[in-house]
Amino acid sequence: MRMRTCVSSMAAGSSMEWLKSVKGVILDMCGVLYDSGEGGGQAIHGSIEAVKRLMDSGLIVRFCTNETQNTREKFVQKLRAMGFDISVSHVFSPAPALVRILRERRLRPHLLVHDDLMPEFDDVDTSSPNCVVIGDAADKFSYQNLNEAFRVLIGLEKPLLFSLGQGRYYKETDGLKLDVGVFMKALEYACDVQAEVVGKPSADFFQTVLNDMSLQPHEVILQLCSGSGLWPSDEKHPSVRADGYVDDLAAATDAILTNH
Amino acid sequence: MRMRTCVSSMAAGSSMEWLKSVKGVILDMCGVLYDSGEGGGQAIHGSIEAVKRLMDSGLIVRFCTNETQNTREKFVQKLRAMGFDISVSHVFSPAPALVRILRERRLRPHLLVHDDLMPEFDDVDTSSPNCVVIGDAADKFSYQNLNEAFRVLIGLEKPLLFSLGQGRYYKETDGLKLDVGVFMKALEYACDVQAEVVGKPSADFFQTVLNDMSLQPHEVILQLCSGSGLWPSDEKHPSVRADGYVDDLAAATDAILTNH
Repeated sequence: MRMRTCVSSMAAGSSMEWLKSVKGVILDMCGVLYDSGEGGGQAIHGSIEAVKRLMDSGLIVRFCTNETQNTREKFVQKLRAMGFDISVSHVFSPAPALVRILRERRLRPHLLVHDDLMPEFDDVDTSSPNCVVIGDAADKFSYQNLNEAFRVLIGLEKPLLFSLGQGRYYKETDGLKLDVGVFMKALEYACDVQAEVVGKPSADFFQTVLNDMSLQPHEVILQLCSGSGLWPSDEKHPSVRADGYVDDLAAATDAILTNH
Repeated sequence: MRMRTCVSSMAAGSSMEWLKSVKGVILDMCGVLYDSGEGGGQAIHGSIEAVKRLMDSGLIVRFCTNETQNTREKFVQKLRAMGFDISVSHVFSPAPALVRILRERRLRPHLLVHDDLMPEFDDVDTSSPNCVVIGDAADKFSYQNLNEAFRVLIGLEKPLLFSLGQGRYYKETDGLKLDVGVFMKALEYACDVQAEVVGKPSADFFQTVLNDMSLQPHEVILQLCSGSGLWPSDEKHPSVRADGYVDDLAAATDAILTNH
């Protein structure tokens, strides 16, 4: 998969001529649409209008997030309250993607996820677990809960670990917070396994979004923030690299609509 | 460094002719002398007598442990209460080794270690920390404490992380428990650093023991248990590999004293 990608960062100003062939845009949410924070964060200046301009231009717009501290519904409610005109069906988050995988592969998870994410798994059979799922459980990442997840995992004939994202950390108003990837690495080491990552930056995850848009990778721009877990530390991601850098979504939208 | 090594495991029976040139023995403790458990564990059958026989034979005997849930003094008290005739000065554990390193390199640690280990750091300056130290903190590995250690680490100009051992997990009477290595991997990933491991299986750690014995590596047998963190998953350790396998310390002692 090879999508055109721009990254919101300070290193703006690259040439954007390749934008001409674009038919769709996939937007990262945290860091592109809004800044996270204790009260749920706030819209980034100009991003509400930018989303509207992109949609009005006829481009197919989808959103992706690794948010796993909330159901997709609650998350979209929050964005709508900020002023974004976004519908749930256009937002792709790890939990619904994982639920689909669990169903397809007939897996029963042991869940170590945020309490507020639990409703996503209402219809999922969690009896006699044959895999472990971790999300951004934050304070629920206690020694006891991690140990419990570990015991389930190490007790499986073939340990199977799913991680909803692989972020290292994120910023909230009260400081940096460890993200799910850190605990994924912990359990990977404990059980000598490699987790299956569901969500950004998994190619499967982006492919699901592309399928929904009915577009080919080269027809789509992926707009990610620099703290999305892909940059700067994961520069060697097999399917995603930055083609350009922009200050923010408003600037990216200007570039897209000017060159489109 | 190349020490002769035997590992307590079920795969006993290898030839032990190379034992003739041995002048000293370094014994792992947990899994070789005693089995861990909730009440502090119990001596492994025959190991008390085996230690005595080794010492009486004129071999230089030292002990090494990655125990970091207790001070070395308390730990040795426990072993003595089980019946082992062991003195504190013959036991090498990570915390005193680290305190030496901190002093030599003028480092001030942020400590995430077990409460019962804290007395080892009584004389250590922990103001304005310029490194992070983790031990087997068990229940103290809460999200909040890990996050605090992470913030200190990521805030340093050059993040410096020490890990007292790198074990994956260990067994207690109530089941498997995650060990410090798991949280080392977590913080390594979060900050994109590689921890300095103090304790087994660090070559520096074993060198300190050899220095104390005034022996060369080839003159010493290292007796480790199969769950020591070196086998089976770390078979490629640069300085330690198994030369033989024995059922237990009593069998190893028989082999050593017969061939010596």
